[in-house]
Amino acid sequence: MALHGARLSPLMSNVYYPEYLQLDKILNAQALESEKHGRPAHDEMLFIVIHQAYELWFKQILHEVDSVSRLFADHHVDDNGGELNIAVHRLERVRTIIGVLVHQMDIMETMTPLDFLDFRDLLRPASGFQSMQFKVLEARLGLRMEKRHGRQYYTSQLKPEHKAQIEALEHMPTLLELVNAWLERMPFLDARYWPADEAPFFQRLEELYSSTLVQGEEGNAALWRKVFVEGDTERALSPKACRHALFIMLYRDEPIFQLPFRFLQVLLDIDEGLASWRSRHLNMVHRMIGLRVGTGGSTGKAYLRGAMESHYVFSEIADLSSFLFERRKLPPLPASLRKATGFALEA
Amino acid sequence: MALHGARLSPLMSNVYYPEYLQLDKILNAQALESEKHGRPAHDEMLFIVIHQAYELWFKQILHEVDSVSRLFADHHVDDNGGELNIAVHRLERVRTIIGVLVHQMDIMETMTPLDFLDFRDLLRPASGFQSMQFKVLEARLGLRMEKRHGRQYYTSQLKPEHKAQIEALEHMPTLLELVNAWLERMPFLDARYWPADEAPFFQRLEELYSSTLVQGEEGNAALWRKVFVEGDTERALSPKACRHALFIMLYRDEPIFQLPFRFLQVLLDIDEGLASWRSRHLNMVHRMIGLRVGTGGSTGKAYLRGAMESHYVFSEIADLSSFLFERRKLPPLPASLRKATGFALEA
Amino acid sequence: MALHGARLSPLMSNVYYPEYLQLDKILNAQALESEKHGRPAHDEMLFIVIHQAYELWFKQILHEVDSVSRLFADHHVDDNGGELNIAVHRLERVRTIIGVLVHQMDIMETMTPLDFLDFRDLLRPASGFQSMQFKVLEARLGLRMEKRHGRQYYTSQLKPEHKAQIEALEHMPTLLELVNAWLERMPFLDARYWPADEAPFFQRLEELYSSTLVQGEEGNAALWRKVFVEGDTERALSPKACRHALFIMLYRDEPIFQLPFRFLQVLLDIDEGLASWRSRHLNMVHRMIGLRVGTGGSTGKAYLRGAMESHYVFSEIADLSSFLFERRKLPPLPASLRKATGFALEA
Amino acid sequence: MALHGARLSPLMSNVYYPEYLQLDKILNAQALESEKHGRPAHDEMLFIVIHQAYELWFKQILHEVDSVSRLFADHHVDDNGGELNIAVHRLERVRTIIGVLVHQMDIMETMTPLDFLDFRDLLRPASGFQSMQFKVLEARLGLRMEKRHGRQYYTSQLKPEHKAQIEALEHMPTLLELVNAWLERMPFLDARYWPADEAPFFQRLEELYSSTLVQGEEGNAALWRKVFVEGDTERALSPKACRHALFIMLYRDEPIFQLPFRFLQVLLDIDEGLASWRSRHLNMVHRMIGLRVGTGGSTGKAYLRGAMESHYVFSEIADLSSFLFERRKLPPLPASLRKATGFALEA
Repeated sequence: MALHGARLSPLMSNVYYPEYLQLDKILNAQALESEKHGRPAHDEMLFIVIHQAYELWFKQILHEVDSVSRLFADHHVDDNGGELNIAVHRLERVRTIIGVLVHQMDIMETMTPLDFLDFRDLLRPASGFQSMQFKVLEARLGLRMEKRHGRQYYTSQLKPEHKAQIEALEHMPTLLELVNAWLERMPFLDARYWPADEAPFFQRLEELYSSTLVQGEEGNAALWRKVFVEGDTERALSPKACRHALFIMLYRDEPIFQLPFRFLQVLLDIDEGLASWRSRHLNMVHRMIGLRVGTGGSTGKAYLRGAMESHYVFSEIADLSSFLFERRKLPPLPASLRKATGFALEA
Repeated sequence: MALHGARLSPLMSNVYYPEYLQLDKILNAQALESEKHGRPAHDEMLFIVIHQAYELWFKQILHEVDSVSRLFADHHVDDNGGELNIAVHRLERVRTIIGVLVHQMDIMETMTPLDFLDFRDLLRPASGFQSMQFKVLEARLGLRMEKRHGRQYYTSQLKPEHKAQIEALEHMPTLLELVNAWLERMPFLDARYWPADEAPFFQRLEELYSSTLVQGEEGNAALWRKVFVEGDTERALSPKACRHALFIMLYRDEPIFQLPFRFLQVLLDIDEGLASWRSRHLNMVHRMIGLRVGTGGSTGKAYLRGAMESHYVFSEIADLSSFLFERRKLPPLPASLRKATGFALEA
Repeated sequence: MALHGARLSPLMSNVYYPEYLQLDKILNAQALESEKHGRPAHDEMLFIVIHQAYELWFKQILHEVDSVSRLFADHHVDDNGGELNIAVHRLERVRTIIGVLVHQMDIMETMTPLDFLDFRDLLRPASGFQSMQFKVLEARLGLRMEKRHGRQYYTSQLKPEHKAQIEALEHMPTLLELVNAWLERMPFLDARYWPADEAPFFQRLEELYSSTLVQGEEGNAALWRKVFVEGDTERALSPKACRHALFIMLYRDEPIFQLPFRFLQVLLDIDEGLASWRSRHLNMVHRMIGLRVGTGGSTGKAYLRGAMESHYVFSEIADLSSFLFERRKLPPLPASLRKATGFALEA
Repeated sequence: MALHGARLSPLMSNVYYPEYLQLDKILNAQALESEKHGRPAHDEMLFIVIHQAYELWFKQILHEVDSVSRLFADHHVDDNGGELNIAVHRLERVRTIIGVLVHQMDIMETMTPLDFLDFRDLLRPASGFQSMQFKVLEARLGLRMEKRHGRQYYTSQLKPEHKAQIEALEHMPTLLELVNAWLERMPFLDARYWPADEAPFFQRLEELYSSTLVQGEEGNAALWRKVFVEGDTERALSPKACRHALFIMLYRDEPIFQLPFRFLQVLLDIDEGLASWRSRHLNMVHRMIGLRVGTGGSTGKAYLRGAMESHYVFSEIADLSSFLFERRKLPPLPASLRKATGFALEA
């Protein structure tokens, strides 16, 4: 159906669309349990196809996220090298894909609870909980086992080899950790750009911020110190990384910060997209099985709500918007830094 | 990921999610040509995955459309049997799926022309034109070979066995033909319900309609006769079928017409959804290859525009809205017919 | 821009598009606070326009919901009268509108926190919490003051006259109550259709249901009795209404239940659509103000999460899917009832 | 409803949500013609509200497009000044809005032709054709009167003062013209960066391009000369502007081209979004009035199809993808240029 881009050529290779896409595999991978049991249920086809479509897209998302992690993993994303541009582009693609995955829930909802009952019992104890790729995605982004809702339950239904696979992942650097390291090694708060030391500058930001706090927000002053100065072992982002992130948010119109700002934004978009997906999913499950027990003994709904609320990966970045204040109050940057964050063009 | 519906049970079968979905096939069916040629192109994965996702959904759409055709194929959709309800439900699902397929084009558009060039030449002469399922879908709905844009070109790129398969389909009844037959055998214009003959009734409708024509529409009076009285071998719908379809549209609030009305609507929704898809596709191709030659020698864009304009399957049904007039001018139905189109409940 | 439907006529009236739509009012209702204060903020226009667009659509939703309530308010929705068809059609429109409102959140999110800060302080103490129409909508659907999250807070920011207006609404029948009454007065469980009494029939359903319960679901047997037999003053739906609703869900393919089934579905769609909206809204607020205090002293996020979780109006209907079981186990209906739920056509 | 951002403060101003949004104007601007004529048509409310929602969003789109034009109108968008970043951000917002406007068509389609007939005749001769804002938008983007489909018809239905307003616009620089000027004054092909003259470089690109042409594309070599060397009075973009645009597309990963590349992309997105809107609109009109005469004597459908095909504003930019070739064949940039297109940071 789609692209008409291939061109005739004297040295024609012999690619044929159905073979290239391995459609013999793809289109022959739907074996209905209900047929095996002699009671074909029309909607089981949908059930299989939609989960396969989800898994295909999870594969694509992992392809993108892993490629971005690799760009960051060598501990260097050269500002002049185009890597960050590529990273943003690919994560924006992930965002777009997640938007389609949320939309896809509309298709699932065309299956009514009664139609699902026609084959539901035949599937036990299979469960979406056994989607390795989704667990891998959460782990690669930065969700740590100990932060997961229903920690033990989380891998209880996997085969041992799959469980081991997930646990192994926990030892690899996550995208969140790579982002923290990238933020930390930014040079913008280096002594060379701050003739009179950067510390007073951040102190001034702190004072500006404190002056905007209103009744009921007094606690935010302490929060500032925890986030930007003291740190906290519970937190994924270090004070130094947070200072750079705030710096990017406040001075995002300086050429060199435009792309980093987009990068931080798209991380939040992904978190939000996954949250939308979980929320749609939760509602769908409620409609589908009501108050009945889900796989594993807890009610599906309670579990999913817990996951929905606690599985944000980049919320420490979202929290930083607490610390913004009006742009017109922003102190100007030192001349040397201003120059370093612009293009060399005019020079 | 998705459904948490399976339940624990003493007689547990042993279905495991990754096996049930045959993920070993699905997730290992992406072989990049660019890798085979030693020049891995990151975006080729997307190119493969999105086409596979399209093909999965085409399979699902065909599953639905074929099941609906079978319901109609025995020449009887019993008003009291629930088949029409099922047909509407399934076609509304098809509509929902097409909506997602249109949205999916957003993902394709995250691939830039330059990224496509990294592997485009390696794919020749493969082309979306070789998607059998899409051609089958068009044929099953009712697009006849002789009405296709670029008739000869249409199957020129298929392997002989695929070409034969498409041509064989042309001899099976299409959904459009089945709909025509279903409309024709409706009893509502039968003599039993029309003590004084139905002919005068339709004549009265014609007069009512003619009286609403304004300057420039005089030709529509002749159109009425062609559509509802004389017929035309070029048309897919017979005059009798059209009379019933108009009847349904005008009296859609009578209980027995509510579902048939929805059925006609969802056929138009599907046509429109496919048109949206073709339109998005056309724009995407323009952005992707500009004014270059597409597979087969014609410019891709011109061909796609032709298909977009001429591949409506149910436009004769859409055209019927030309013949509506204000509800308040509608003649009341004979008492016996009114009774027959309602529920027996109160009796 | 949109419809080209108006026709020339000898008796031309003189409607002119900009006047018909009162565009002088609509397009001159954007007065930026930031301009009044001499510091024009570009994005305040968006802030105003999007809220106005939301309010326009809320008006339309209320127009539909109120018209549906009126259809039900005379305590009679005649199965042969077309009212239910109209009700379903209009509520499906509401569902479509809500889908657009959720999508519209994408536009809001193009405003960054820093851009919002340019004029946020100038708006105090205005708040979306003062949207009368949204409160009215919740109240009209069936959300009772005492069930609202943050009950007191709920009207605390309204002017006295608006507060009174909301409180007055609480005395009008809600859509949820009207639905309960409509379900209660259905005749399908009447003695006339049940030669041997309907009670044994529902007992049989209960037994069938109990036999499907698995480990961990034992409590659902008691739940069945509470929902379908004993009732509970906390519940909005009576046992009788619930029995009819379950009846509809189980026998939805009988002609007379097809439309009631769609009606129940679209109520759930609306609940789910509003839940999606609240979820997107919650995420957007988190991104926009982080952990800062929202209007009224509580953190906006905590409040919104509470509302998101407790403001489902039709969850008692969604819960009913807990009580479904496989269609093939369904007892057949008595012949007299079967006839009464079909069309009179063949008779 | 939406944002909970306003904060309590000792110096509280007195902004109240309903007043701030001027809801008395917005929500009292719906006067149904059908009510004036004593035959209230339920769906006329939808008809009015949706057109008002469209007009509100057109106002917002114009607010964004005009602000972007102003940024470019002083003939200087400083690479280090952040203006281009702002321009991209605002046009991406326009793209998002258009996406919602396309989606909004779903709402319009919940109105059936029969429901429209209840009030259609009362609206004559009003027509969406009298939407000034849409015409202004097309003109501001760059659609010239002489390129419009149905040129004379285009303003024939406007009141004289509105017609004059549109004609006046034609003398202001359009966004397309401003983009052309911006591309022309880029310094990247200046002598200072090309020790050995830039001409041979573009000649080399031409040769590279020609070598990729296949059978049937021979004409594209001449096209290259027309676009990049000779120019053509019919074209909106000059050869020099096109050379820079191609340069941006080919070297988009250089830091200084990342944002210009996004800028060119979003122009195409807007064109495509408007095309989708026109396509959906066309289909909707067909369903709504069938083959009847639209306002003005031509069939609405034929007119709309013409507009859909000819009203692309930025197609000369989209066409440029015809002239791309594989990235790995790209000649490297001279060292001085490479430096000028990167950040000064490391220096």
